[in-house]
Amino acid sequence: MTQAKPTRSDIESAIRNIPDFPKPGIQFKDITPVLADPRLFAGSIDLLIGNFKPGMVDAIVGIDARGFIFAAAAALKLEAGFVPVRKKGKLPYQTHEQSYDLEYGANAIAIHIDAVKPGSRVLLIDDLLATGGTAAAAASLLQKVGAEILEISFLIELKFLAGRDKLQNYPVRSIISY
Amino acid sequence: MTQAKPTRSDIESAIRNIPDFPKPGIQFKDITPVLADPRLFAGSIDLLIGNFKPGMVDAIVGIDARGFIFAAAAALKLEAGFVPVRKKGKLPYQTHEQSYDLEYGANAIAIHIDAVKPGSRVLLIDDLLATGGTAAAAASLLQKVGAEILEISFLIELKFLAGRDKLQNYPVRSIISY
Repeated sequence: MTQAKPTRSDIESAIRNIPDFPKPGIQFKDITPVLADPRLFAGSIDLLIGNFKPGMVDAIVGIDARGFIFAAAAALKLEAGFVPVRKKGKLPYQTHEQSYDLEYGANAIAIHIDAVKPGSRVLLIDDLLATGGTAAAAASLLQKVGAEILEISFLIELKFLAGRDKLQNYPVRSIISY
Repeated sequence: MTQAKPTRSDIESAIRNIPDFPKPGIQFKDITPVLADPRLFAGSIDLLIGNFKPGMVDAIVGIDARGFIFAAAAALKLEAGFVPVRKKGKLPYQTHEQSYDLEYGANAIAIHIDAVKPGSRVLLIDDLLATGGTAAAAASLLQKVGAEILEISFLIELKFLAGRDKLQNYPVRSIISY
């Protein structure tokens, strides 16, 4: 039995707003109802992959932790490898690190120095584009390992935070915008 | 062009030993070379899924963070939903929590109270079975939401830690044992 593929609007309808999480004044976009629904989950992977087909991409890069969910499934679908970008200190082998500013203080993420072969064609896929700090830091790490970033795609983009401004050197696409 | 499916031995050969990580005396099993290789990554998902086929499973449950990688890809392959189990405080909606003992102190993980419909057939898939504390806590959470655990599977099992003893109520399978 074939079901129609879900639209952006179907996925958007399943996203749940959680007020005051993780702190007062923030309205959190809870994607777990999308993940739990097989049709919406598969549909969101299709939309994140866009026009890329198997053979066009060597690896999909995912950012710890929610980004792993979409990037790993996309890697399987595109017959590509999966590469994790993790918080500093979590990856066991030698790493490149990149710090980025948060509202208060700074954070650092890391990638294994041998995560991809130089010249590899990669997609960076994450759940959320907010201020763009994490994605820009991940893109810097991918340059350090010599990857060619074909596209950066997000399930959700919070346009009012202008995160896209930090990613001007790359093609950026988002499925749902607020 | 069809490539032969990788064997357990192919996957095992790609796992990298990292001495003294995360602390002196521990030999860490680095699975990132498996993830980065499209054939080994897809093969590891096939082995983790085992004999389950689309339609037999409602959801795949993954544990934050490396477990997300395998469970999300398995969910896509089995046309099932994906359910995250996360460290306490990370999930935005109402949760059940379960604490478990670590070598020093304790930890707690959580699941959304509406993560699955009661009676849902689920697989719990994780990268590593060590002492079994996390997996046993995740299984308790799945019972709290009324899920039926069909199987718990791991890419790697550290047999000398006897983690399987904590999971005697469930069918447990691992791909590679040390």
